[in-house]
Amino acid sequence: MKTKPLSVALLGFGTVGGSVARIVCERPELADRIRLTHIFNRDVARKRVDWVPSSVAWTEDIDALLESKPDVVVEVIGGIAPAGDWVRRALGQGTAVVTANKMLLAAHGPELLDLAVRHETQLRFEAAVAGGVPLIHGVREGLAGDRLLRVTGILNGTSNYVLSAMSGGEQSMETVMVEARRLGYAEADPSADVDGDDAGAKLVVLAGIAFRRHLQLADIPRHSIRPISAPDFRYADRLGCTIRQVALVEARGDGFHAFVGPALVPRGSNFGLNMDANNIVTVAGHYGGENSFSGAGAGGPATAVAVVSDLLSLTQRERDRNEEWLPASVVAPPARPYYLRFVVKDRQGILSLIAASLADKGINLDAVLQEPGYPKDTLPFVITVEPCEEDALVAAVQEIATADFHAEPPLALPMLLGEARRT
Amino acid sequence: MKTKPLSVALLGFGTVGGSVARIVCERPELADRIRLTHIFNRDVARKRVDWVPSSVAWTEDIDALLESKPDVVVEVIGGIAPAGDWVRRALGQGTAVVTANKMLLAAHGPELLDLAVRHETQLRFEAAVAGGVPLIHGVREGLAGDRLLRVTGILNGTSNYVLSAMSGGEQSMETVMVEARRLGYAEADPSADVDGDDAGAKLVVLAGIAFRRHLQLADIPRHSIRPISAPDFRYADRLGCTIRQVALVEARGDGFHAFVGPALVPRGSNFGLNMDANNIVTVAGHYGGENSFSGAGAGGPATAVAVVSDLLSLTQRERDRNEEWLPASVVAPPARPYYLRFVVKDRQGILSLIAASLADKGINLDAVLQEPGYPKDTLPFVITVEPCEEDALVAAVQEIATADFHAEPPLALPMLLGEARRT
Repeated sequence: MKTKPLSVALLGFGTVGGSVARIVCERPELADRIRLTHIFNRDVARKRVDWVPSSVAWTEDIDALLESKPDVVVEVIGGIAPAGDWVRRALGQGTAVVTANKMLLAAHGPELLDLAVRHETQLRFEAAVAGGVPLIHGVREGLAGDRLLRVTGILNGTSNYVLSAMSGGEQSMETVMVEARRLGYAEADPSADVDGDDAGAKLVVLAGIAFRRHLQLADIPRHSIRPISAPDFRYADRLGCTIRQVALVEARGDGFHAFVGPALVPRGSNFGLNMDANNIVTVAGHYGGENSFSGAGAGGPATAVAVVSDLLSLTQRERDRNEEWLPASVVAPPARPYYLRFVVKDRQGILSLIAASLADKGINLDAVLQEPGYPKDTLPFVITVEPCEEDALVAAVQEIATADFHAEPPLALPMLLGEARRT
Repeated sequence: MKTKPLSVALLGFGTVGGSVARIVCERPELADRIRLTHIFNRDVARKRVDWVPSSVAWTEDIDALLESKPDVVVEVIGGIAPAGDWVRRALGQGTAVVTANKMLLAAHGPELLDLAVRHETQLRFEAAVAGGVPLIHGVREGLAGDRLLRVTGILNGTSNYVLSAMSGGEQSMETVMVEARRLGYAEADPSADVDGDDAGAKLVVLAGIAFRRHLQLADIPRHSIRPISAPDFRYADRLGCTIRQVALVEARGDGFHAFVGPALVPRGSNFGLNMDANNIVTVAGHYGGENSFSGAGAGGPATAVAVVSDLLSLTQRERDRNEEWLPASVVAPPARPYYLRFVVKDRQGILSLIAASLADKGINLDAVLQEPGYPKDTLPFVITVEPCEEDALVAAVQEIATADFHAEPPLALPMLLGEARRT
């Protein structure tokens, strides 16, 4: 069936926007399906490049662009305002939107999806999670036949770069972060990456795709990777594990357990083996077991592939099943083992005091690890505990933290031994 | 948009068919989208189960079934005849078909796709490659924006089970095969699995999806894993590698290089780490780099998820871009390094004779490996060669094979060091 190519207006000509334009211009075989008509950017004269055909209008005038009624608006500006208002205006006039904006979707996904339905148009966002990894098509369509149970991912390339570079147990986070900045893997302020907001927003989108439920980002516990130190990797190694920033969402009764933060994963699992800035997502289903998707999670060209794939998918469907993300609540995790790391000013009786606090909450010790060679006034050691409820663990750690022997606050990490699939 | 559920007739009630029925019956939320109306099987009385609703007609009468004009026929019988005729009849009357039949698609894919187009209906086959791994949705739609360069996969679970079980270098293939049969991973006659026809048919389907080109299965070189022995794993290990049955198709000029057979892959790559009966596929694109998909490649429930996902995708599209697989030719591989293993009745001068044959064809030695402890009359040793053309290598090996010192025919395996992504 031959139809007119979709007219496409591109909002934002940064790394991703530039790559989208390049793919569309470099692949003449796409010309009968999509046609770039506008490029919008602030200060657009500075952005203009000569390899974009002269038929494309460069503009700073968003009103005129929207009034020209393109078939699709591609939003790769990022941020909630003003991008969100422009996405709303486009959908509200029946213009389809392709976006890579995870923050916008995490905050306003249900409203935007509803707006698309009411105006009989489409909102697509393959690029919003894991860059070029075709997760949304794979999960929402390829696994539609399954009843999904859990989605576990490494969704932030910066954090994975930092943690995988530290995995030898020699380098400090500061050293690795300097290198990450030099290579362009980390921004000057890496807070959104290392503290979990970026992975959290992506997890909200993933939960929408996998479960059609909307979790509030504010409800998802996010733990920073900043407290992770070189000794943690050495202790993790003794446990057959390494440390990754993990994002997970799991159906639990009427709600969902959700978590973003550093966790121990088996060294030989596909999460433990996921290196550099790569992303990986494992989806567990009731019928089909576990499927994993991995690839470059970010970068202009990879993310642009996802945007162009979304554009092409718009050319081949007259309608799509309406997508709706219903509200959902975040509930406590299942009982699981934890890794507790203390850095203390050593003296007698510390271990018995910690053990007593844990026992008092009904938590059983599994292992106590103390390596030689550390200074006595900042002595790191590790206790692992048998599977326990998170509430009990948090209460015990809070009690232990009030003692006067700590050189650093205690650190508790979940041990995800079954969630990250062994290869 | 609310529409009537699709009526679905299931052809075949074996492992996969039974699982398809189970998912459809166990997931009431699917009832407004798909409705099972018929189950066809030979000797159907023997197959009847009580958990299928009484509204479903059990039948041995294919003519009556097709005449009832279901919206979709699910073909999970397998084999080219009579399944192919029934698929043709369904498509020819405008009935959509969902099939898991890789052999049928490999042999007649272009004809069947064309039949679907001419009768304005759909042919879907997510289950035909890598069971439950949502490759087709991921690659064809999620990576549509990229220009794909190469698809590399471990597509046969039986072969991967056998080779990964042998990877310690201790167990013979015979021993492992007995265990594979006991666990249900291998059939009484494993020829299609270990000799490469199964992976070859899947590779034809993958090439169709990734490149929209039809390679003839007969044109794809398929090498058996049967000659692989325990010493090969010990030598591979010394090269930082292990051995897997790899299937790959790569765009080369106007044609495609395609290959199925045992190959050396880096031990630490995601192919080297792919264990048991799991499948993995890595897709390399010009823009987005490499994406990998992995999961259970076979088994009733996983394959059934793919079938049900295809059914659900039929409920949400009024039309799909027509798919067409154009003819394509198979061309020679790029120059690559090879692993050559000889088992000889040892005597002086063997190495110099082999080296002379290789040098005569312009092939440079890279390493010579000979481990102690093997009997002198069946002495295995290994030569690796620098990247060379396949023609030259084959000619050299043929010449070497005419010598009288061989206790077993020489074995040449490609070393896929860049094709299998390092994790």
